[in-house]
Amino acid sequence: MNLVQAYDYISVELEEVRELFDSELQSNIPIVMDMLEEVGKFRGKMLRPILVLLCGKACGEITKDHHVIAAVSEMVHMATLVHDDVLDEAESRRRGKTINSLHGNEAAVMLGDLLISHAFHLCSSIDSQIASRMIAATTNTVCEGELMQLYYRGFYDLDEEKYIDIISRKTASLIAVSCYLGAQASGANETTCQAMEEYGWKLGVAFQIMDDIVDITGTEESSGKTLGIDMLKEKLTLPVIHFLSNCNEQEKQWATQVMSDPSNKDHQIFVDKLMKSGSLEYAHQKAVQYVEDAKGIFPHIKDEQTKSILLELAGLVVSYH
Amino acid sequence: MNLVQAYDYISVELEEVRELFDSELQSNIPIVMDMLEEVGKFRGKMLRPILVLLCGKACGEITKDHHVIAAVSEMVHMATLVHDDVLDEAESRRRGKTINSLHGNEAAVMLGDLLISHAFHLCSSIDSQIASRMIAATTNTVCEGELMQLYYRGFYDLDEEKYIDIISRKTASLIAVSCYLGAQASGANETTCQAMEEYGWKLGVAFQIMDDIVDITGTEESSGKTLGIDMLKEKLTLPVIHFLSNCNEQEKQWATQVMSDPSNKDHQIFVDKLMKSGSLEYAHQKAVQYVEDAKGIFPHIKDEQTKSILLELAGLVVSYH
Repeated sequence: MNLVQAYDYISVELEEVRELFDSELQSNIPIVMDMLEEVGKFRGKMLRPILVLLCGKACGEITKDHHVIAAVSEMVHMATLVHDDVLDEAESRRRGKTINSLHGNEAAVMLGDLLISHAFHLCSSIDSQIASRMIAATTNTVCEGELMQLYYRGFYDLDEEKYIDIISRKTASLIAVSCYLGAQASGANETTCQAMEEYGWKLGVAFQIMDDIVDITGTEESSGKTLGIDMLKEKLTLPVIHFLSNCNEQEKQWATQVMSDPSNKDHQIFVDKLMKSGSLEYAHQKAVQYVEDAKGIFPHIKDEQTKSILLELAGLVVSYH
Repeated sequence: MNLVQAYDYISVELEEVRELFDSELQSNIPIVMDMLEEVGKFRGKMLRPILVLLCGKACGEITKDHHVIAAVSEMVHMATLVHDDVLDEAESRRRGKTINSLHGNEAAVMLGDLLISHAFHLCSSIDSQIASRMIAATTNTVCEGELMQLYYRGFYDLDEEKYIDIISRKTASLIAVSCYLGAQASGANETTCQAMEEYGWKLGVAFQIMDDIVDITGTEESSGKTLGIDMLKEKLTLPVIHFLSNCNEQEKQWATQVMSDPSNKDHQIFVDKLMKSGSLEYAHQKAVQYVEDAKGIFPHIKDEQTKSILLELAGLVVSYH
């Protein structure tokens, strides 16, 4: 299976989500509308909407509420991307120029705010407050994760536990709540919803570990975004954390000197050492383990076909393609 | 009457709002909690919560929902202040260091996001979706106003109509919705709610005009915040718009040259000319007119005492103190 097959399986529903997404992101102010259309181009793999729909389908009927929750999850995700790009000063994202590089950081801050605002506006169209409440609790968690990540920049003693805590908050929490709410909107019981949430959480952790690996090993051509930012911003990710924990004092001192100074000439040497160290394989293995755990705790549901797609989707997260 | 008397009139209710505000802005992550406590110090005059409570009291009983809406309105306002300071690169706010000057722009972006997120989280604790929906529609409008303001920076032909449109969105909309929801939560009919909204809107426009005047004429000592930012950022406000519209071509060219170049030596000469031009008085008169209009359209309500406080409060907005 590949991602395209997962798309095909729920293509009609996904199209409804896209339409809802576009109809929410409107403005009668031409200059704002222009920016919303630009940011709309960043809509990516739609992982979160797909999970909302699949977890919903796995537990029962897909409803209008699923479309709303799916569109909201993508909108929140896009808002975090726009603000992340401000933080990272990234120049490209999904093969296009980032909003900050086009309109400056100030417009990017406000446009990210507008996306968050529209997400909550759309979410409040559901009768029940459950989704609004849980999405807002999740965005609290995402922001806390981002603030922790900023705080621990350049903190070369960051350990794996703290790293997992940070990415759980900033990335896995939104994926987890997408799965929970997908099941919940289909009338699944709390035990099933929580199992779906746990599946999403583990998937999200694996997904972020893979994203962090690609920032080191990927090419900008294949990923379509500016890479190498983590190191430049002294953001410690799993491969580097593992590498540093296996260095002796002298090596660690050299490595931190290289990483803390973007103009240091040994930068490529450091990356080469990292590539050969086994730390990237260690990180990948960790991601694979999270995916295996996700599959292991997947709830018992009747719809075997949807279940198998969700399990295969988990596998895709840790495959290099 | 002064603001203290308005506080006293609803002091018990206002204390409930403060407690709710503080209990929402919690985090079990110590570094995040430290930042939330810092930003909590920026809590200002509480104009929006006061309006929620007074408009509610004017129309009936104050309920738990009023406390929630009041705390949410202040939280949204604070989020815009934190992001405004990023945009303005301001160094001080309410006699304290701004978050961006303390922790950098990146933390300020995320902390502003966290405040918005908490605002929606708190708002979703109300059973009805009306408040959530209207607050989110308002934050959409606020962001659009901010984006328009950014777009029109350095646009020296900006006219008064466009200026009023921008400040209506970025400032008056939140004040207006605070008045609407205050009345609505007390069970007022739609006509009364809309009249309250209109009162709030006019008050908000007057409030922003005064704020823009203070940015030119005030002292940092008395206002407690960094001033002179509008001109530095080529943000055209009513006094400058009026001044430029009364210049001849040559004067206008000189004025725009001075404003577009922060290092231009004629800066003080320009400010002196502006002070003597009558344009500040024109802007003040405009604000006074908005307040008079606000008083004029105030709805007929039984509670004369609360009504008179709301009318006097409007007058305070345009008094220099």
